[in-house]
Amino acid sequence: MFTILDTTMRDGAQHPKIGYSADDKLGIAEAIDSLGIDFIEYGAPAFDPECGAFEEKYRLPADKLVAFGMTAKHGIDPARDPGLKKLISCRAPYITLVGKADSDQVRNVLRLDPDLYLENIRKSVATLTENGKKVIFDAEHFFDGHARGDGYAIKSIRAAALGGAMIIALCDTCGGSLPGAIKRGVEAAKREADVTIGVHTHNDSGLAVANTLAAVEAGAEHVQGTLLGFGERCGNASLSTLIPLLNRLGYIKTKNLNMLTPVSRTVAEISNITIPDSTPFVGAAAFTHKAGLHADGVLKEKEAFELIPPESVGNSRRFVISKEAGRHLIKAKLKGVLREADDPIVLEKIFSALKKREAEGYSYEAAEASFYIMAARIAGRNVDFFETVGFSVNDSFGSPSRAEASIEVNGQRESAVAEGVGPVHALDRAMRKCMLRFFPAMDKVSLLDYKVRVIDSKSATGAKVRVSITTTDGKRTWKTLGVSANVVHASLTALEDSYRFALNDDFSSLFA
Amino acid sequence: MFTILDTTMRDGAQHPKIGYSADDKLGIAEAIDSLGIDFIEYGAPAFDPECGAFEEKYRLPADKLVAFGMTAKHGIDPARDPGLKKLISCRAPYITLVGKADSDQVRNVLRLDPDLYLENIRKSVATLTENGKKVIFDAEHFFDGHARGDGYAIKSIRAAALGGAMIIALCDTCGGSLPGAIKRGVEAAKREADVTIGVHTHNDSGLAVANTLAAVEAGAEHVQGTLLGFGERCGNASLSTLIPLLNRLGYIKTKNLNMLTPVSRTVAEISNITIPDSTPFVGAAAFTHKAGLHADGVLKEKEAFELIPPESVGNSRRFVISKEAGRHLIKAKLKGVLREADDPIVLEKIFSALKKREAEGYSYEAAEASFYIMAARIAGRNVDFFETVGFSVNDSFGSPSRAEASIEVNGQRESAVAEGVGPVHALDRAMRKCMLRFFPAMDKVSLLDYKVRVIDSKSATGAKVRVSITTTDGKRTWKTLGVSANVVHASLTALEDSYRFALNDDFSSLFA
Repeated sequence: MFTILDTTMRDGAQHPKIGYSADDKLGIAEAIDSLGIDFIEYGAPAFDPECGAFEEKYRLPADKLVAFGMTAKHGIDPARDPGLKKLISCRAPYITLVGKADSDQVRNVLRLDPDLYLENIRKSVATLTENGKKVIFDAEHFFDGHARGDGYAIKSIRAAALGGAMIIALCDTCGGSLPGAIKRGVEAAKREADVTIGVHTHNDSGLAVANTLAAVEAGAEHVQGTLLGFGERCGNASLSTLIPLLNRLGYIKTKNLNMLTPVSRTVAEISNITIPDSTPFVGAAAFTHKAGLHADGVLKEKEAFELIPPESVGNSRRFVISKEAGRHLIKAKLKGVLREADDPIVLEKIFSALKKREAEGYSYEAAEASFYIMAARIAGRNVDFFETVGFSVNDSFGSPSRAEASIEVNGQRESAVAEGVGPVHALDRAMRKCMLRFFPAMDKVSLLDYKVRVIDSKSATGAKVRVSITTTDGKRTWKTLGVSANVVHASLTALEDSYRFALNDDFSSLFA
Repeated sequence: MFTILDTTMRDGAQHPKIGYSADDKLGIAEAIDSLGIDFIEYGAPAFDPECGAFEEKYRLPADKLVAFGMTAKHGIDPARDPGLKKLISCRAPYITLVGKADSDQVRNVLRLDPDLYLENIRKSVATLTENGKKVIFDAEHFFDGHARGDGYAIKSIRAAALGGAMIIALCDTCGGSLPGAIKRGVEAAKREADVTIGVHTHNDSGLAVANTLAAVEAGAEHVQGTLLGFGERCGNASLSTLIPLLNRLGYIKTKNLNMLTPVSRTVAEISNITIPDSTPFVGAAAFTHKAGLHADGVLKEKEAFELIPPESVGNSRRFVISKEAGRHLIKAKLKGVLREADDPIVLEKIFSALKKREAEGYSYEAAEASFYIMAARIAGRNVDFFETVGFSVNDSFGSPSRAEASIEVNGQRESAVAEGVGPVHALDRAMRKCMLRFFPAMDKVSLLDYKVRVIDSKSATGAKVRVSITTTDGKRTWKTLGVSANVVHASLTALEDSYRFALNDDFSSLFA
């Protein structure tokens, strides 16, 4: 049986910016479980105090849970080793036990006699198995050890097998092995040890995925990685890349493959790490087409520039709205939404406005609602349901932000004052208070997300910023943006566009 | 001769968020040139209006420049094709000419007879070579075409060779080929066509680097990529990963390899794309150690967890300051800077404070100056040279931000008012005006960069934010941070720490 182990919560948490609480772990475990991944490694109980609380609160069946630990301390009888005791008493039926498989590492980092250490491996594994745990042995530095040619790497995994390990995962701990060396290592391990072989790779050479595939092709039947490639230094093999590939190659058959993108976003959100747009399969740009030539090719034949259907991994195809996208793509984008854009003169005006705004730092790719507002205004539709006639935001020492705003609708003026936890929060509240008098539907509209990006950071606090806002009315979710040297002014522009979109019936079918 | 071509300015610009001006291109070309990369592709003169201005302004020798274009339009004599004419008249001695090498693509996307198209390829290449250009033929969809098994892929590259192409780069345009297929394709091309073979891969399967290596191992002698892997969808093969690997394997010998990280940062800055921390070799975390176990291993033997010395690629080793780093790493960090931390009681207090601050959302990994300030305060040193006794920032419609600030130094009070292009800019100016009366050295201190990160974006404008600030005094550069629900308050905290660091002689040896 081919199995996959996710170690986002243990090896992934080695990412310099990650630190998971027990609640974070619960959220990640649930997300990973919904993908049907076989093993969920949730941490090292001996070092990570969040593991206890996680075990207590975990409500799903525990039969996928894996805890992580190390071989017994030198000089301590494994049966009395405090780390192993922690593992024995934890709730997980499976244990990943790490031990060194490179004689040089044992000698110079552990400062132990390599032959004596083999016995430690065997006894440590045996202590766990005798206490009812099933053991996955992570053979650290296996490939470097195997390349050393002294036979120690194989001896170490034989010791683990002798102790009763269920699976032995060969680790490319430094991420420096090439696919050919991985293949040779896996072949040797399979030949010399009668146990299921797995693989655990790191991405320091950008080869973690390729090395995992090389191992699988050579007969490895167990893959360890982190869903989004999180991990120390350059990270671990990314399961969100490997899962579609292993499905494509027939090694596994993931039932909920179309959950891959939403689950990845959930894990990224909990980890507070943004998924790079260009991430294979699950990145925002993984199926985004920009060049006129390529986009045209995709319009004619989807397979021309797409590896798999984006829906199959829960992602979606996008054509970028930008001057490079060309007029025909903008036309396609507005088709059925703004019939005036069928007129080539109107289309040309929209295209020119787009180019001008992009030169000013606007970027509509991630703020399509602002694009529609701009296009509709150019087409002569009424989008300016209100006018902001004044605002003021004040922040001072030890008090909440305070905003005043005034708007005008059909000659009628309304003003309001509100407090908030920051200037934009206060301004949004004050603006909404004003709007509610004229537009009761605004009651359902609320902000979901708020992002600030410095466009040109060279002049530091004097730099231009781009503010993007995500808004929802409970049914639809849309994004708007504003650009200014002043973050408050940029935020106002984005807020205004967001309200305009909410109030515009022409767009009620979009983003539903 | 083994050559490398950087196409950041052409294929890289297909990244949804990139659009290069002529000046951007000049900056990138200069950066790429300083790395000793053989070919610099700067764009497609027929489509990209910035190419003309770039050619005019480019002051380095033009002998590395490559322009990009397509085979002649169907039905037009290549000698009269406007696109080819543009290429002939451009300043670059080299042309990358793209043509399709997959019969299915020719039939269904170009909608041409595949056999007729072969003649177009030959004539298009010949038109360029007869006009003095040296041609690199990009055989688009070569690997998919070759896998189709109808022999057309080979026919197409033979046609290009017959036209006089100097190099033929085999493209994995959709990024779906596996290393084995790449190897077979390159071997077939080398056997069937008497011309230098190159490779051009995309990363849709996370295999761009591995596929490039597979091609090189099979005999390809020319590699195309983008320095940071920028490109359409999941991007191109990343040269910042490939260059160290190809050096390690002896295919190339880069003189200025230690410029790789600074050059990568320059290109990222011009592109306004943040390099993900985990990027191999050049990422901020590529040589960062966090786990107590691994960091301890590195302290004992650097090779234990490091592929190459970080300095060799212009990067540096870092140990993360975090609760997971463990006490001994914090001790190592403070050694020689804060002798009080040798006292275990003081060290424990610093460690506890660190844990408490991290729980509040502080993250010292990217703001070490704030960590030193905190540690020094706990150790009883004087770091609070001034006290902010009041501030107020006001933003209103159509006017610049205006800030008032008051500080106290040894019982003496100073107040100042300043305007700025945003609230933080105004506040920084007002604070500095106050400080200058007491600390003339503050005159040399200025902000370099300013970043806002929403820590918990779930509550939108009410979310907690982390503000990081980079400051310089012309000699040293340091980073500080502040966390608050209010972006102005968080900024003040970061600004205060920055001033404290500037004024603290204890730290004058740090970050120099």
